[in-house]
Amino acid sequence: MANFDVAQLAHVELFSPKPEETVKFFTDLMGLQVTEKQGQSVYLRAYEDFYHHTLKITEAKEAGMAHTAWRASSKEALERRVQSLEKSGYGKGWNKGDLGHGPAYEFQTPDGHNMELLWDVEYYEAPEDQKTKLKSRPQKRPNIGVPARRLDHVNLMTSDVTKNKNFMIDELGFKLREHVVLDNGAELGAWLSVSPLVHEIAVMADQGGHKGRFHHIAYWYGYPQHLMDLADLFAENGIEIESGPAKHGVSQAYFMYVYEPGGNRVELFGDSGYLIQDPDWKPVKWTEDSLAEAIVWYGGDLPEQYFTYGTPNKESKIILPIS
Amino acid sequence: MANFDVAQLAHVELFSPKPEETVKFFTDLMGLQVTEKQGQSVYLRAYEDFYHHTLKITEAKEAGMAHTAWRASSKEALERRVQSLEKSGYGKGWNKGDLGHGPAYEFQTPDGHNMELLWDVEYYEAPEDQKTKLKSRPQKRPNIGVPARRLDHVNLMTSDVTKNKNFMIDELGFKLREHVVLDNGAELGAWLSVSPLVHEIAVMADQGGHKGRFHHIAYWYGYPQHLMDLADLFAENGIEIESGPAKHGVSQAYFMYVYEPGGNRVELFGDSGYLIQDPDWKPVKWTEDSLAEAIVWYGGDLPEQYFTYGTPNKESKIILPIS
Amino acid sequence: MANFDVAQLAHVELFSPKPEETVKFFTDLMGLQVTEKQGQSVYLRAYEDFYHHTLKITEAKEAGMAHTAWRASSKEALERRVQSLEKSGYGKGWNKGDLGHGPAYEFQTPDGHNMELLWDVEYYEAPEDQKTKLKSRPQKRPNIGVPARRLDHVNLMTSDVTKNKNFMIDELGFKLREHVVLDNGAELGAWLSVSPLVHEIAVMADQGGHKGRFHHIAYWYGYPQHLMDLADLFAENGIEIESGPAKHGVSQAYFMYVYEPGGNRVELFGDSGYLIQDPDWKPVKWTEDSLAEAIVWYGGDLPEQYFTYGTPNKESKIILPIS
Amino acid sequence: MANFDVAQLAHVELFSPKPEETVKFFTDLMGLQVTEKQGQSVYLRAYEDFYHHTLKITEAKEAGMAHTAWRASSKEALERRVQSLEKSGYGKGWNKGDLGHGPAYEFQTPDGHNMELLWDVEYYEAPEDQKTKLKSRPQKRPNIGVPARRLDHVNLMTSDVTKNKNFMIDELGFKLREHVVLDNGAELGAWLSVSPLVHEIAVMADQGGHKGRFHHIAYWYGYPQHLMDLADLFAENGIEIESGPAKHGVSQAYFMYVYEPGGNRVELFGDSGYLIQDPDWKPVKWTEDSLAEAIVWYGGDLPEQYFTYGTPNKESKIILPIS
Repeated sequence: MANFDVAQLAHVELFSPKPEETVKFFTDLMGLQVTEKQGQSVYLRAYEDFYHHTLKITEAKEAGMAHTAWRASSKEALERRVQSLEKSGYGKGWNKGDLGHGPAYEFQTPDGHNMELLWDVEYYEAPEDQKTKLKSRPQKRPNIGVPARRLDHVNLMTSDVTKNKNFMIDELGFKLREHVVLDNGAELGAWLSVSPLVHEIAVMADQGGHKGRFHHIAYWYGYPQHLMDLADLFAENGIEIESGPAKHGVSQAYFMYVYEPGGNRVELFGDSGYLIQDPDWKPVKWTEDSLAEAIVWYGGDLPEQYFTYGTPNKESKIILPIS
Repeated sequence: MANFDVAQLAHVELFSPKPEETVKFFTDLMGLQVTEKQGQSVYLRAYEDFYHHTLKITEAKEAGMAHTAWRASSKEALERRVQSLEKSGYGKGWNKGDLGHGPAYEFQTPDGHNMELLWDVEYYEAPEDQKTKLKSRPQKRPNIGVPARRLDHVNLMTSDVTKNKNFMIDELGFKLREHVVLDNGAELGAWLSVSPLVHEIAVMADQGGHKGRFHHIAYWYGYPQHLMDLADLFAENGIEIESGPAKHGVSQAYFMYVYEPGGNRVELFGDSGYLIQDPDWKPVKWTEDSLAEAIVWYGGDLPEQYFTYGTPNKESKIILPIS
Repeated sequence: MANFDVAQLAHVELFSPKPEETVKFFTDLMGLQVTEKQGQSVYLRAYEDFYHHTLKITEAKEAGMAHTAWRASSKEALERRVQSLEKSGYGKGWNKGDLGHGPAYEFQTPDGHNMELLWDVEYYEAPEDQKTKLKSRPQKRPNIGVPARRLDHVNLMTSDVTKNKNFMIDELGFKLREHVVLDNGAELGAWLSVSPLVHEIAVMADQGGHKGRFHHIAYWYGYPQHLMDLADLFAENGIEIESGPAKHGVSQAYFMYVYEPGGNRVELFGDSGYLIQDPDWKPVKWTEDSLAEAIVWYGGDLPEQYFTYGTPNKESKIILPIS
Repeated sequence: MANFDVAQLAHVELFSPKPEETVKFFTDLMGLQVTEKQGQSVYLRAYEDFYHHTLKITEAKEAGMAHTAWRASSKEALERRVQSLEKSGYGKGWNKGDLGHGPAYEFQTPDGHNMELLWDVEYYEAPEDQKTKLKSRPQKRPNIGVPARRLDHVNLMTSDVTKNKNFMIDELGFKLREHVVLDNGAELGAWLSVSPLVHEIAVMADQGGHKGRFHHIAYWYGYPQHLMDLADLFAENGIEIESGPAKHGVSQAYFMYVYEPGGNRVELFGDSGYLIQDPDWKPVKWTEDSLAEAIVWYGGDLPEQYFTYGTPNKESKIILPIS
């Protein structure tokens, strides 16, 4: 049983063709902090993220997700997962680590998304003037932008929801929390977690007909007002809001989707959704006749491009009608 | 100068073909209180409305606005307005009053919307178990639904924005606060007030091509969270949300539009907008190239029916392209 | 390793000398739902609680906590815990179960608080008119009071924090998340969890000098505005607020404490606090020189009775100076 | 009748012995903008203030209020007030104006607080990169601190509430909205306005036994969450919060009081309170037996120093028991 061998989403590396503007978006509007820079990469974290970084922005020709990193529950758990991944054929091997963490084991999802699993992490140490008396916070609350509190989850577009979902369950011990199942039995999306959160990862059908693309990274705010404040800043600063603030039925998330200047979609998560503490949880199954409520419980709509646009951006033909 | 002769929006009478369901909507979901019933009418108020009622629901074949009542600033101010209205040709004469207020002078807008102006009002007296220690509140905060705090404004659809706007300014002393002006010079909408509020009344072009229809009544909440709470209740109870919660550029209102079961559009106003205290205010002029921001600053869209549906409901042909 | 054998807080039974008023407090103001009544007991749950009940109110001469129930992670986990508890000497034996759940194994904390551990639970099934389209909700959001969403945690007063803390860790697999340690080494309070929540249980030194008393039960709201709304309802209805809404440093909880009419202290939890996803979490240690920030980060004070009043209520002599 | 001759609170000049820190407090934490500097003074405004400045910080040995400026409703209204003030004996004469406004007529309250009345104002013009598409906003929403939206009111400590209240009513046309009256008939505080706001000015009995001191200046936020956000920033940055966030019964304000580094008390106003649109409003009278609710409706306490500390700071003996 792989349950509990993966503990949490550790960090995400995004490619950006406009890295300076991308970093400025995350720092000036979302209040993230730059920890370090190296080569073509900038390392960032939200003020309640405990590790060295949760976001790495790397210059590249095209937007996209470079890799997603998970932290294991223990050194032993890491070893168990590596053995299993090697057998599965999806394992790629160990790297030497990066700023902020030790060696990590690289692997790919069936769709080809790059991931890594690691144990050794470097904790963020605030400089003297950023130390706080609030001992569960790694640094003072910033006074810039509307500061996000922590990394929340990633959402991957896939050519085969079921296959990629099963990979996360079988190889990494994720549990299925909610999914959307069409009348023909095909899964349109699946939300999975290793904790009471409804998801640390979601996999969604790529309605543009591609493989291995990235849908979005989500940072967590927790307070609905902050999404309104940030929407106001976005409107003032020419940042395109795709949808929201509004509330999904799936995961009960109060959401807002926006494009960072490099082209990647970013979600701001504005409340707590709900927590799953039932050890015997039966996955919530949304069907075609409840698709509308699954997508938006109240407050807006998701435009067609929500289902077809991913990074890297590619010419998309809609392959499946939504709503 | 008519300035200040009208003090406030006093109450609105709405027609409903489903009066029981309409009253239930206002009481069970929006927390309004029934003060009294008489004949085919039910009198209601929000818990921080000071007078006998701010809403009268009257059974009728079709939805619509029966009349809108304004309170004058004084007995003398009322007399001045009556003299002026009689000269204008829009005056209709005195009625005997109604439950909750004394004689009122009836008149019509150029488009034919029924209005009245009055001075004598009956203040609401809470029954013993509803008396509160919060002395600026006429009764305890209700524990039913998500309770609205007070009546805010009305919005009328008109066949001629400029003419009806000028009537409100010239005959009743309203000030123009904001308006939308097309490139050809025609006004698409105008927001007017007799107080620092941006509007106690708005007049909008009827894109369905009709005359004298009603667009919406707005109750005020003041807190954004309450609009989300109410949207959640609406979603649970099959009430159709037309748009929002989201934020207009015009008036900076955080809004939600919904249809009460009788068919009238109701707006919930979820923050304070902004106040106009400058005695030399120059009306905000939105033009075609800023129409998008005027309509929605952030958070959603207004569907086409927002511009074409009014009560009474009529077959509508779109006469003017929007956005 | 007991880790993960306990999954969650299942329910709490409170004694009340005024059971009707206590139930009315929870239903009319906090929006809880009565599931069933039997004998001198009423079974209640919040609208996002999944099981038959999370609160049982039982008539008794004195206020207090009758028992606290935990759900195991599996049938096997339950058996492991029972074997361990039997060896420990704190086990009491199996009961036959109650409305809403099967047989439960009873035990006591070192201080004598009654607890039970169980596996079989009955899920709440909403009646037809309470069914919702939001599939992760067991029923519609209520339109009464300011509805709490779910049970959150319990806080127990103890004569020996360290001993009772160790019991929860050693016998039930809880992890220490935060604690307050005096200069002399004594622990003033400890917050423990089996999930990313900072606590499903806290143990605090009984400053009144007693053993086995109850401090509070907490229901979760998640939205700060709801605590203000509820405070307003409390003020209107003569319910004594002890402290808040304000924010603890410990657990980062946005809190409000209030006495239900039977005399038990109830906490309303108004945001998400923070989540602990780090598998290698080092407990946050608050010391005497950071006690002020631990107790209140912003927004108010905790009065002396917060530290001395527990249920059952007893004559208290302050044994330890606070702040 | 002086009604309506004064339109609004225009700006306030505060003395600070630590002007740099004071300005930093207002800009870095409260998001105010520096418009201009001259001599020992810095001119600031909130992002929705329309004029050149609403706050002038001037270096001085002691904290205190240098002057409070009101804008008249028109040039004619200004002249009427000047004539009346000259007759009253409280007039001091015209000055040449200041940055941001033309000549102003100076006068004093009976207690000796400096005030001025003016008509000509300079509107703020945002630099190119601060221009916004939200046409009722004079500039973009800042991304620094938790930005206040506009100046709200001033509160003056006086040796004689009734005398100073009557001066504001008789000479400037303010209306009494609420007051606290002791059993012996003495007024403890009075809240006055020239608009539907409950107060642009309050006068409170100086419980320290002094004359002509300043109690606080209030900036308006409108959203409760912003007070929590700002309280968090204050806690992080060593700013002393005196009280709140909590809710007054008087004016229904959701408040927080804090000391800026120069020593002046500043209030943050976190919702809309309520509006008075009734032209025949009877002042709300709070009496000794309702004093507790008047002071705090929910959420906290006002410490003794709230009633005795004013600027300039002076040795205070309590002359009247409160609560």
